Amino acid sequence: MQNTPKFVFDKMMETDYFSQWLGIQLLEISEGKCVLEMTVRKEMLNGFAILHGGVTFAFADSAFAFASNAYNKLSVSLTASMTYSKPAKEGDTIVATAIELSLTNKTATYDVVITNKNTGETVALFRGTVFRTSRLVIGNNSY
Amino acid sequence: MQNTPKFVFDKMMETDYFSQWLGIQLLEISEGKCVLEMTVRKEMLNGFAILHGGVTFAFADSAFAFASNAYNKLSVSLTASMTYSKPAKEGDTIVATAIELSLTNKTATYDVVITNKNTGETVALFRGTVFRTSRLVIGNNSY
Amino acid sequence: MQNTPKFVFDKMMETDYFSQWLGIQLLEISEGKCVLEMTVRKEMLNGFAILHGGVTFAFADSAFAFASNAYNKLSVSLTASMTYSKPAKEGDTIVATAIELSLTNKTATYDVVITNKNTGETVALFRGTVFRTSRLVIGNNSY
Amino acid sequence: MQNTPKFVFDKMMETDYFSQWLGIQLLEISEGKCVLEMTVRKEMLNGFAILHGGVTFAFADSAFAFASNAYNKLSVSLTASMTYSKPAKEGDTIVATAIELSLTNKTATYDVVITNKNTGETVALFRGTVFRTSRLVIGNNSY
Repeated sequence: MQNTPKFVFDKMMETDYFSQWLGIQLLEISEGKCVLEMTVRKEMLNGFAILHGGVTFAFADSAFAFASNAYNKLSVSLTASMTYSKPAKEGDTIVATAIELSLTNKTATYDVVITNKNTGETVALFRGTVFRTSRLVIGNNSY
Repeated sequence: MQNTPKFVFDKMMETDYFSQWLGIQLLEISEGKCVLEMTVRKEMLNGFAILHGGVTFAFADSAFAFASNAYNKLSVSLTASMTYSKPAKEGDTIVATAIELSLTNKTATYDVVITNKNTGETVALFRGTVFRTSRLVIGNNSY
Repeated sequence: MQNTPKFVFDKMMETDYFSQWLGIQLLEISEGKCVLEMTVRKEMLNGFAILHGGVTFAFADSAFAFASNAYNKLSVSLTASMTYSKPAKEGDTIVATAIELSLTNKTATYDVVITNKNTGETVALFRGTVFRTSRLVIGNNSY
Repeated sequence: MQNTPKFVFDKMMETDYFSQWLGIQLLEISEGKCVLEMTVRKEMLNGFAILHGGVTFAFADSAFAFASNAYNKLSVSLTASMTYSKPAKEGDTIVATAIELSLTNKTATYDVVITNKNTGETVALFRGTVFRTSRLVIGNNSY
């Protein structure tokens, strides 16, 4: 009863210092799905005055981690790929929507779309695959 | 004479606030090559007490951007992929080595290997492709 | 009037000997979209008696090429990634659906989903990016 | 004694009808490494009179499968990515060299470089990750 997706998310976030630094807000969480929101700050920009591609990726990667671990089955990232569309700028609010494409006992694959709430544009497309370990996120063998 | 790879790097870094936040140190820069170093801080960790995969990616992405823009030809990231090997921990010093795999007038591809100086392990493998615009990084049409 | 997506497709197929070998059938073609069908033959299997991953990829790659070239603007593949879900078997009919995720003057990105008509399962997920040259597929500078 | 990398390769090839169709020749096989050679035939071309990107991928994918299964531990492809450099043409002999980048009990990652023996150019760069099952390729639970 306790280890709901929301409870797992809260527990992970407690010590996820980088997601805290990103300033992410949870919009939706369920098994295999996660929607997050954040706002682009000056310290997230690269030398071309746009959101650093690595921060964009990190935001998608957080949504991917929360979606895949929401089953309370510890899942570790194996590979991820990123395709960039339109850059986001300081002050823009961006949304990451992670959905599950496939799920087996051992692996799962997710798509994360990053959209810009200010312009309606797609910022980037992320696709990642996890290895699902036999350990729990929260429980006897919790992290 | 002025727009050497090192000069372009310095100019990009001046306003690359996120690379500054990462605390990256330049070890080597030339056309198509860049080696960077940084140390993992607590605020870079995820909920499993290891370096957030997005920060790992961002570090590789910075090396990739500096290597590809060192020609002073403005290059924008199209796609990148990441494969994770061994997680890094707080206090570890990690090195990103970006090398050029192919180069045409319009596109170029780079590999970035992230290694852990403390353990000697490979942390992650990044591969990215840029579109090389007809604009300069520094010059009449500078950013 | 002449260089419609269907006309470009037919012209490309005339000398696309490998797509002919695959036995692909066109279900739908328009600018940025292509749907193809083919049936798995014995000579397409790997040593585990399932459809060779390379043939699965090639089928997706053909849909990707037809979708991106349907504008009659010669487009060359830069990168592609593949995620495997469920293997297809001899005799299965599979469908590749290519849709456009983003389009600029110089580049474009497509997703191709391969589904198995016999089982309803997703076989694999392909994502690819093209460089859009300034040449035509059919016309004065045709291939 | 019997299940050497070469023996596993031979056994896989016996029913790997698509690798047979490709006409691949084995140059080297060991645990985690495989080098193959093949010659581009007319039926492998796409509509632009160059080697179909899917055939290039399939050739890399075969080298990847042989390298990863050479331990006689059944390994299935999870994801792969491809970056294209220079096209190969009819009559060209191409070589695929698969090397292991990382290996754990459950997963492994390989790079495959495709080179053109006729021009010395790099044709394409492949990177793939397998899930290593607990089954044998050859033995009590053989395929």
